[in-house]
Amino acid sequence: MRITSPTLLVDKDKVVRNVVRMRDKATRANVIFRPHFKTHQSAVIGEWIRDLGVEKITVSSTEMAAYFAAHGWSDITVAFPLNPHELDAVSTLAWRITLNVTVSGEQTARVLAASRTTPLGVFVEIDTGYRRTGIDAGDISRIRAVLDILSVSRHDFRGFLVHAGNTYRAATIDEICEIYKHNMALLGELCRNVSDRSDSIIISYGDTPSCSIVEHFDVVTELRPGNFVFYDIVQHRLGACELDDIAVALACPIIAVSRDRREVAVHGGAVHLSKDHVNNDDGTPNYGEVVAFDGRRWLPNQTLGYVHTISQEHGLIAASEDFLKSASVGDIVAVLPIHSCLTADCMNVYVDLDGNTIFQRPKNIFSACGAQIGEYERRLKNYC
Amino acid sequence: MRITSPTLLVDKDKVVRNVVRMRDKATRANVIFRPHFKTHQSAVIGEWIRDLGVEKITVSSTEMAAYFAAHGWSDITVAFPLNPHELDAVSTLAWRITLNVTVSGEQTARVLAASRTTPLGVFVEIDTGYRRTGIDAGDISRIRAVLDILSVSRHDFRGFLVHAGNTYRAATIDEICEIYKHNMALLGELCRNVSDRSDSIIISYGDTPSCSIVEHFDVVTELRPGNFVFYDIVQHRLGACELDDIAVALACPIIAVSRDRREVAVHGGAVHLSKDHVNNDDGTPNYGEVVAFDGRRWLPNQTLGYVHTISQEHGLIAASEDFLKSASVGDIVAVLPIHSCLTADCMNVYVDLDGNTIFQRPKNIFSACGAQIGEYERRLKNYC
Repeated sequence: MRITSPTLLVDKDKVVRNVVRMRDKATRANVIFRPHFKTHQSAVIGEWIRDLGVEKITVSSTEMAAYFAAHGWSDITVAFPLNPHELDAVSTLAWRITLNVTVSGEQTARVLAASRTTPLGVFVEIDTGYRRTGIDAGDISRIRAVLDILSVSRHDFRGFLVHAGNTYRAATIDEICEIYKHNMALLGELCRNVSDRSDSIIISYGDTPSCSIVEHFDVVTELRPGNFVFYDIVQHRLGACELDDIAVALACPIIAVSRDRREVAVHGGAVHLSKDHVNNDDGTPNYGEVVAFDGRRWLPNQTLGYVHTISQEHGLIAASEDFLKSASVGDIVAVLPIHSCLTADCMNVYVDLDGNTIFQRPKNIFSACGAQIGEYERRLKNYC
Repeated sequence: MRITSPTLLVDKDKVVRNVVRMRDKATRANVIFRPHFKTHQSAVIGEWIRDLGVEKITVSSTEMAAYFAAHGWSDITVAFPLNPHELDAVSTLAWRITLNVTVSGEQTARVLAASRTTPLGVFVEIDTGYRRTGIDAGDISRIRAVLDILSVSRHDFRGFLVHAGNTYRAATIDEICEIYKHNMALLGELCRNVSDRSDSIIISYGDTPSCSIVEHFDVVTELRPGNFVFYDIVQHRLGACELDDIAVALACPIIAVSRDRREVAVHGGAVHLSKDHVNNDDGTPNYGEVVAFDGRRWLPNQTLGYVHTISQEHGLIAASEDFLKSASVGDIVAVLPIHSCLTADCMNVYVDLDGNTIFQRPKNIFSACGAQIGEYERRLKNYC
């Protein structure tokens, strides 16, 4: 494969392996498997996952739902607080497919209940400690208030949706398990408190660290991880994956070598990797782990250094002794991303290990289409 | 204008004002004006700038050069270390337009000299303290070695190219002026040391803070700023612009309000704004300043708070007292970006204040085209 400029490589075998592992875990636990497609955002990669028997998916915006619906997905949950401006689009989609939306508070519940949209499946977002959006798991009166509003609407309350993003702040696997246990206690209590409202409440649970590490899912009845399809350095540091599970890497040409500064510069910057970073032990930032590339695939265990500084198009690598000796302008190295969701979103296009180009959805054109599904689909057809 | 989902608004009047101001400054100083197009990356915004009499531009990749060449630009400098894998593409472009490339070391100079490419204009990159790429301004023997290599090639040495990115680390305007003065001394000395090599060495100088603040350009003969076309919060904090000069803002719908946490959540996250941030006085991160939106334009002086936490699609705003009182799900607010180059690159599409959609170049398809200009142009034609 000829790499000329920064190229996001995706290893289909690893994607398939990651998905099969999580799918089988969900099957063993007898829970619904509804992977989040926000990480890859690609119809082609979606097909790889469909071929493994997956039929239900999660997305994080109405635009993303419209994209995957246009590519044949017919059971989609939008795990993002419902945006009232997109109700027409949601209604159009729900007329064609099974569409679940997320309600994170009374105000949105009221807007939804008052609207004339096609009947929707509704998840109520519950916060178990991440403190982003959702109603506090212990705030039973607010949760019941939302259920009251929904119960007199045409919409169908499906269950509770949780993203335990606070696992990303955990230092150890044990800590992730502790957070999980704590959340199960909260959700168990919540279910008991609202058991009069439904006898089949889905508990949909989402973060990759929990889903990768936990084996027994307790009250959870649906798994909704996203990042696991690719994994990344953050997940590796959390203990959620092996380095060899990381399914994407940015291939970058070397553009300069500075032996006195022990640095190698590559074409590969913030517009390719994103500016997400982890910290090294000394507190300095790390924007990506650099490994060898053999002309076809990256070698996750052949470490060359890490990206210590990043600007729009440049990455500066703190180079290992051996790498520094051999590095030459024009050589290709691979960077394992810190946060693969953002790297994939930055790049917008992949190349698989056979050299095939794989497009993501076009970026942010929904608003420019006035949030009209028809106009959006017309533009999708013209997309390269 | 109807905003439904995160939308990058661009105010043409402000873009024009920013460009006119910088163009007139260059004219007064009798230096070449060659703005960097990496910030907007859009043919349409390029036209606005061409209409102001600009004919020479800078870009940061061969792919970007190919994009703007396909849109009628015929004098382009690629201010990024030459990538040997792209020599064929560079050669094809240089056959049609005036193309200058950048050489940042002996190895690249040798590869270029040995190649059979169309004759190119060549800038030698000089480092005056930023420590990214380029040869140290004081390392006269390395600089002369590169000039020696180029002098026996078919290529035409045009001058020295400097990006003084270390101004971004300055705390005050005075410090930026100090850095500039220091760099002028280094470049003056360099010019004296190589005066035997050419009697018309261009000194091309690039960062927005210096170009915005400095009035007398000393030995510099070409200005190459990029960010100034939009400016952003980083530039405002450096004293390089007024808040009212910032020409882009991300319009975001409110999706949740948490009065107890004094927070407002918007649809507008790391895939829209990027993860770049500045620090507040207490060291906590700030991912964007939030201001009011009146349905057509944002109001830079009507501050509502700032984005304190960001995930893939969510932004959490630390809300001012008044904003918290009035905020309602569905309201639209505007976020002034911390780093507009990255926000523009994340979004990939703009909407102007009349509601027109303005596309950027398609992202990262050059490598998938095997770095072939013909194939790249074929794909460009199909792009929405």
